[in-house]
Amino acid sequence: MDADALIERVLERSVSTGEGSGAPPLLGQAIRHAVFPGGARVRPKLCAAVAAACGEGRGFEAALGAGAALELMHCASLVHDDLPAFDGADIRRGKPSVHTAFGEPLAVLAGDALIVMAFDTLLRESRDSPDLLAPLMAILIDAVGTPRGIVAGQAWESERTIDLSAYHQAKTGALFVAASMSGAAAAGLDPAPWRALGERLGEAYQVADDLRDVLLDEEELGKPAGQDASHLRPNAVQNFGIAGAIARLKGLIADASDSIPQCAGAPALREIVHGQAARLMPKSLLRNVA
Amino acid sequence: MDADALIERVLERSVSTGEGSGAPPLLGQAIRHAVFPGGARVRPKLCAAVAAACGEGRGFEAALGAGAALELMHCASLVHDDLPAFDGADIRRGKPSVHTAFGEPLAVLAGDALIVMAFDTLLRESRDSPDLLAPLMAILIDAVGTPRGIVAGQAWESERTIDLSAYHQAKTGALFVAASMSGAAAAGLDPAPWRALGERLGEAYQVADDLRDVLLDEEELGKPAGQDASHLRPNAVQNFGIAGAIARLKGLIADASDSIPQCAGAPALREIVHGQAARLMPKSLLRNVA
Repeated sequence: MDADALIERVLERSVSTGEGSGAPPLLGQAIRHAVFPGGARVRPKLCAAVAAACGEGRGFEAALGAGAALELMHCASLVHDDLPAFDGADIRRGKPSVHTAFGEPLAVLAGDALIVMAFDTLLRESRDSPDLLAPLMAILIDAVGTPRGIVAGQAWESERTIDLSAYHQAKTGALFVAASMSGAAAAGLDPAPWRALGERLGEAYQVADDLRDVLLDEEELGKPAGQDASHLRPNAVQNFGIAGAIARLKGLIADASDSIPQCAGAPALREIVHGQAARLMPKSLLRNVA
Repeated sequence: MDADALIERVLERSVSTGEGSGAPPLLGQAIRHAVFPGGARVRPKLCAAVAAACGEGRGFEAALGAGAALELMHCASLVHDDLPAFDGADIRRGKPSVHTAFGEPLAVLAGDALIVMAFDTLLRESRDSPDLLAPLMAILIDAVGTPRGIVAGQAWESERTIDLSAYHQAKTGALFVAASMSGAAAAGLDPAPWRALGERLGEAYQVADDLRDVLLDEEELGKPAGQDASHLRPNAVQNFGIAGAIARLKGLIADASDSIPQCAGAPALREIVHGQAARLMPKSLLRNVA
């Protein structure tokens, strides 16, 4: 079974656990709606790829658990960010957003449950390597909560003056940093040298997202377009222009590749990172630019 | 320093951590508003009392951490339950609710951050006894998420038909069960025999809350009164009448006391449980009944 299928299997195990005996049925359905079918699963894939590259097999299961936990946190943040109090987005991944399909109360609760489920996933999937639980949990907490995680990132939008660097680093970068660091930690390595890879990829992903928000329409995006402009959010295309943003994206991918620490699987991991660049700039995007 | 002061100290440590370098200031203020000044802190006090009674000192720090984690989860649930999509309560503990003071986006995010902070508290406060992390985490997760935790309990209100026993057990009972079981687990004991104590106390607390909702006014409650009737929620006074509900409350306290397993500190713990009964039926409540 390849890593992609293994990631889906861990996510399925987590969501099924939440549907267990005594569960209110609609909450279970709302959670399943938020998690399946998924997006690109880029965070868990990065986590698994780093573990495979530097661990040569060690800690791969814990890395899958940590990656799935990050994906569940990502899904939780999408569900809450789509709420009327934030973006008020009616569609997500080409289907109704959770609050549109299930109502606002269940959307709030599904997000809450997904946060708890992420920790449950970490606990369950590191059962065979209990020493990894505390370090992986510390990385996850740092990426999600306050002062520097995605919740803090989203909260910057409610401040009168925004710290742009803290905003981007927390809102998009944090989960990518956690993905690369968790992969290394699961393999038993010091995660610190792997921070740069996550930071660069997170920034690249943010620039690509800014480009898509400006250049694609709702059908191509699977979510409302032009959201940054309508919510007065900073956007790289505004700052650098389209060509400038594309150049920045390419530079970030190159930096990410260069940052990969020495390890047996470094060449294969560099290939994967460059593969991301192609995925981040799909044909439709380049067609709209041309 | 007594247990009450130690609990406040752990909570202060958690909230301060969330206000650390890089934090968006308003989010930090919203979280502090949700946690201080607190309510009765009944869940962490129960956790500490059980650990003291059965552990004779062992694991007391981890029990304080687990208790504080439960209190942060309780605060998170109050912040989200007060949102306009649920109770739409403007006041809580005699001051503006979080969404009233800080707006809806920061209330959603403060609740999310408090959930993550609870896990961070567990991790930090069990650092000196790492073997306790996984068992305490499992108890916490069970009490909060799906299928049986407080999130699931709240979600029953969105179902077309409500499973009343699952609803009450999850919405109020779960955190009390976790409090008594965490106290025992922190002391290194099998937590299972301590479940009944939490269940009975949780049910007693729910009946007392139902009585207060019917009998007290907003000023005495520190939150809107008559919420159960206006949200068509089940209420023990509706089912049993005032005298019946008070009799039930007394019976539950007696059952809770009787359920305490054999241990060195059992007599002292029974005193504490009976002390709760007095707290749950304050003079103003009895005056209104008389």
